[in-house]
Amino acid sequence: MTYCVAISVNDGIIFTSDSRTNAGVDQISTYSKMHRFGIDGQRQLVIMSAGNLATTQGVIKRVRADIKNNEPVNLMNVADLEEAADYLGEISVAQQKKHDIEGSTVNHEASFIVGGQIGDKTPAIIMIYPQGNYITSSDTTPYLQIGESKYGKPILDRILTPETSLDTSALCALVSMDSTMRSNLTVGPPIETVIYEKGSLKLNRHYQFQADSAFLRELNKSWDHLLQEAFRNLPPIKWSENWDQSPDESGEASS
Amino acid sequence: MTYCVAISVNDGIIFTSDSRTNAGVDQISTYSKMHRFGIDGQRQLVIMSAGNLATTQGVIKRVRADIKNNEPVNLMNVADLEEAADYLGEISVAQQKKHDIEGSTVNHEASFIVGGQIGDKTPAIIMIYPQGNYITSSDTTPYLQIGESKYGKPILDRILTPETSLDTSALCALVSMDSTMRSNLTVGPPIETVIYEKGSLKLNRHYQFQADSAFLRELNKSWDHLLQEAFRNLPPIKWSENWDQSPDESGEASS
Repeated sequence: MTYCVAISVNDGIIFTSDSRTNAGVDQISTYSKMHRFGIDGQRQLVIMSAGNLATTQGVIKRVRADIKNNEPVNLMNVADLEEAADYLGEISVAQQKKHDIEGSTVNHEASFIVGGQIGDKTPAIIMIYPQGNYITSSDTTPYLQIGESKYGKPILDRILTPETSLDTSALCALVSMDSTMRSNLTVGPPIETVIYEKGSLKLNRHYQFQADSAFLRELNKSWDHLLQEAFRNLPPIKWSENWDQSPDESGEASS
Repeated sequence: MTYCVAISVNDGIIFTSDSRTNAGVDQISTYSKMHRFGIDGQRQLVIMSAGNLATTQGVIKRVRADIKNNEPVNLMNVADLEEAADYLGEISVAQQKKHDIEGSTVNHEASFIVGGQIGDKTPAIIMIYPQGNYITSSDTTPYLQIGESKYGKPILDRILTPETSLDTSALCALVSMDSTMRSNLTVGPPIETVIYEKGSLKLNRHYQFQADSAFLRELNKSWDHLLQEAFRNLPPIKWSENWDQSPDESGEASS
């Protein structure tokens, strides 16, 4: 499994991904799911991937080859993020179809998030479905997720707005990752984070948190403690106001 | 969609369920998913259901009929919770099969949680899969969920132990429900909660929180506020310790 989240706020973009890959619990490996492409001062793009590892590796290999061969359409010459998403969607669908053998039940699907900034265009993040179509984020939902997205969604919904700072957004992404790792063992470190500052056209803030990262451990412990404290401060339940007198459904009379 | 959670602690059992049912977003209805059966002083059982509404209603109807007709096996004469689970599993599978028409893609699957106490046996909760097999809770995971379970799982994992009090467990179930309702619109009020005190053999604490419940609103607001406060108290990220110097993957040299 995988968990990747991208957050687009006024100041820029946060990308965070885990690195665990599994084909059954006895075949767990570590692969980076975050790929950075760019020319400083001109364009910066980050791709994160989830799903069938052969598909995602095939797509990234193709992306690299198209850049190297200076193909008519490649990540270094697309005019905007939507064109990048169209391009990725097409090669993803082609890659999946290539290996779908009739009668086989293997799932070759993959999802991608691409984000960044091209020239003076507005930075953006886009999620590409296995079918090749895509969606972007919005002011009310300034983030996109792929993979095991549910455990880590509530904290994103409660914290993020377009005004959230980059550092706070990055912390929120890491808390979201922490909740996901706690609930799903097939999501795990190293955790990668990229902080892209709007207008910088540089990807000079890339961080890796290893399994033994003191910060990840501290974050896990602090958040656990703070959540328990928050829980203790909740108002007590006013049971009497919600009393229900309807009888149970026993066939026998209550006696 | 549905969200139901049962929590089994040393002092007894908490059952909490939502009441929203949908067949497409324009066909949303309210149905109770919590059914209580018992004879005071002898046995108390609560069933919660998720999945195909025709299946779950068919199963509950059969359960009632079997009690009324005093069938050889019914909820009022099963010897223990496992026998109740075997019985429910069998009628659930039969109900699903009855309506599975070849070629149809309608999903008739349903899941159930049954819990309570029979005589002087230890109270227990059991989750029954659509296939009729089942699992129970444990000291390390003192809860069971059916339906839309992921959004509300992190808080259960962080708060619950066998020593947690009944009132705290009930509050935890409601916070878990609140997170789920926030993230999935097809889970919604009224929210029902039953608090079963171990050894009481009475189901005299059944509560309903309506959509306009002042408590639910207060809980939602307080938890939102407390989580944001907790988040603000997290340690800042020590970026410098996790700096990664590996280059990006651009085909072009960074310049």
